[in-house]
Amino acid sequence: MPLDTPPGYYSFNEDSVCAFLDSLPDIRTRLGGKPADWRVVEVGDGNLNLVFLIDGPEGSVCLKQALPYVRAAGESWPLPLDRAFFEQAYYRAVASSVEGLTPRFYHYEPALYAIVMEKLSPHIILRRGLIEGRRYPKVAADVGDYAARAIFATSDLGATIEEKAEWSSVFARNTSLLRITAEVVFTDPLGNSPRNRWTSPALDDLAREFRADSALKTTVADWGWRFLTEGQALIHGDLHTGSVMVTETDTRVMDPEFAILGPIGFDVGAFLANLVMNFFAQPGHATAADDRREQADWVLDQVPVFWNAFATRFRSLWETKARGDAYPPAMFGAGDAAALDAARTKFLDRVFADAVAYAGVKTIRRILGFAHNADFETIADPAKRAPLETKSIRLARQFLLEPASFRTAEDIVAAARAV
Amino acid sequence: MPLDTPPGYYSFNEDSVCAFLDSLPDIRTRLGGKPADWRVVEVGDGNLNLVFLIDGPEGSVCLKQALPYVRAAGESWPLPLDRAFFEQAYYRAVASSVEGLTPRFYHYEPALYAIVMEKLSPHIILRRGLIEGRRYPKVAADVGDYAARAIFATSDLGATIEEKAEWSSVFARNTSLLRITAEVVFTDPLGNSPRNRWTSPALDDLAREFRADSALKTTVADWGWRFLTEGQALIHGDLHTGSVMVTETDTRVMDPEFAILGPIGFDVGAFLANLVMNFFAQPGHATAADDRREQADWVLDQVPVFWNAFATRFRSLWETKARGDAYPPAMFGAGDAAALDAARTKFLDRVFADAVAYAGVKTIRRILGFAHNADFETIADPAKRAPLETKSIRLARQFLLEPASFRTAEDIVAAARAV
Repeated sequence: MPLDTPPGYYSFNEDSVCAFLDSLPDIRTRLGGKPADWRVVEVGDGNLNLVFLIDGPEGSVCLKQALPYVRAAGESWPLPLDRAFFEQAYYRAVASSVEGLTPRFYHYEPALYAIVMEKLSPHIILRRGLIEGRRYPKVAADVGDYAARAIFATSDLGATIEEKAEWSSVFARNTSLLRITAEVVFTDPLGNSPRNRWTSPALDDLAREFRADSALKTTVADWGWRFLTEGQALIHGDLHTGSVMVTETDTRVMDPEFAILGPIGFDVGAFLANLVMNFFAQPGHATAADDRREQADWVLDQVPVFWNAFATRFRSLWETKARGDAYPPAMFGAGDAAALDAARTKFLDRVFADAVAYAGVKTIRRILGFAHNADFETIADPAKRAPLETKSIRLARQFLLEPASFRTAEDIVAAARAV
Repeated sequence: MPLDTPPGYYSFNEDSVCAFLDSLPDIRTRLGGKPADWRVVEVGDGNLNLVFLIDGPEGSVCLKQALPYVRAAGESWPLPLDRAFFEQAYYRAVASSVEGLTPRFYHYEPALYAIVMEKLSPHIILRRGLIEGRRYPKVAADVGDYAARAIFATSDLGATIEEKAEWSSVFARNTSLLRITAEVVFTDPLGNSPRNRWTSPALDDLAREFRADSALKTTVADWGWRFLTEGQALIHGDLHTGSVMVTETDTRVMDPEFAILGPIGFDVGAFLANLVMNFFAQPGHATAADDRREQADWVLDQVPVFWNAFATRFRSLWETKARGDAYPPAMFGAGDAAALDAARTKFLDRVFADAVAYAGVKTIRRILGFAHNADFETIADPAKRAPLETKSIRLARQFLLEPASFRTAEDIVAAARAV
């Protein structure tokens, strides 16, 4: 390792990963046979980590290991290994609340910053499926349900002060990834970061216009403050369509290494934003056989499906499982039922408003910032890509500067169609 | 000790405190002479701790030690000793920002949960001074200045993500006192807690009316959620007039054991509320020689003095010392100056609105909840006390349910006079 790593750490290759898994009796049993019988393939797709898929005669596992640098950027951008610790800590924190909606967790090896978990098959990444024109009837409702369950259980509605304090204390230390989010999502895209890129020259004028928009910049900064300060629940922190694996009948949320105590709307807005961006990108993936209009409509219709699933589950958990110190049941009696119901509605309206704003921030960063997403990036022709990105980022600006226009998920659908 | 305490812990008496201080060379030197020459008096006034004042031939110190129970309630209400740890951790975190405005910190003894610090003399507690009809020309501006400095330095404006994470991680564990605040400030007073008390029977109807006010209860719960989730800065957590010691020329803020990462408005609102309560209490302390009208006016006038000192200092620090990750300087250029200035104004307006609401919550709890304050409690005659408490709590209700009426500190002054 050219970079400083803790004693005992080494990065796996196909051979050493088998030797390691052979040392874990439960995993050896799960795979069956001997290491020589195991097939190993490394599939980490160039972001932050090594990802091995291991198949044995009787079963399979996935091993994810943190590297001491940002894989997408190379060794010139070092990154602490401890993100693997936070990823497994998140899985453990939410496991009992979201059973069946994450990969099963098998083992964490602290010294190697390696997580052994269920190999999902034949799942593919949701973003890829949507780009390929596939539909997943359950996914929007499943992710909404997932977000509601994970968030409620770790909020001051579903957890006690003492339980939440434990997570606060642990996840406060996930500063490396928090800094990445703060910089690449909030600070850089409208600042003058050398890491920024965009479809050039087509969007040069738009980039200049956005970076000169002082009202937009201070609004993004307002939301940056809220992102850094509103520890409403243990959030996933990166809940986009690339963090979800799917089949037509199964949905799993993964890659929670950005987990922090943060605003609920940040997770909700991430998924919203990525559905909307995929909607705008669809014409860029049209073929002679499929103009993608129906696919685009279907994707956009998932916005209210997702939000309604989230809101319905969240409200139902609040009504039946409140055991935290916010809105404490001890404070209310039968005579307060109507007011409490109204307070819940207002609460969810605030989450929705937050989500719309964070969706705006996250869209801007995918078009003008460092990390773009495949929905647009896989449209090879810039002349096709640029106008679709332009539509998407114009709506994002509306999300941030015209919040009163977005009271319901249907408002988002209507506005996206109207762009 | 009848309660479980950690090995090595014992609670001090006049003799053992001298033996202990004699074992600390710096303190022994500061006091001068020998333990036999030292005068010791215990002055803890019945809340949570033992407080010894020790005078030697050459100097003096104060020793504050946590007891394993709530002193005001007795051993039936156990309370972890670690609050002394959080108190000294807070002093250390803000020391360089608020020099001269806290007692000087000399020593912390972890196993005994004891803090040795400057003995303030001839200072008295601000609340007592105000009740006695004294005026302190500097105090409101000093406390405003103190709050701005301590809060700015520990917020995402004045500290980096990594610095704030350290405080978040440590103070997240201050759960015993956070639970006390959550319960006695937010949950209990409008709930049906057996710990509640009020001036009875005079305020029985009012207490019943307030506890049946569903809109008020859900509003208090909204602010309880925000109190538990908005980690905007390391706040004092109990910044009332009983936490300030004064002379006419010197101001010191003390007793920060409730420190947490919390909303800025909670500290600001605490001080506001306690000024306003003292204003309402003044006629109850009238004598033949002094009707206290001028004193009441003077106290109320300190509300804008305090707020303006806070806002002016906070804005000036933001303009000159911004080094955090919220509203990062890297994001803005010369062309953004006007927008950033407007964003700062909006930010301070939000802090003020939060402060007004928390002032409402904190007033209600002092009149209907467990812990009352001396401003009203020392009015011996309930027939005098009850109408003054009624005025104060009616204004508190306006703070919470008519927020649009309170845009400036002068609005508070006018509304208080109008009650």
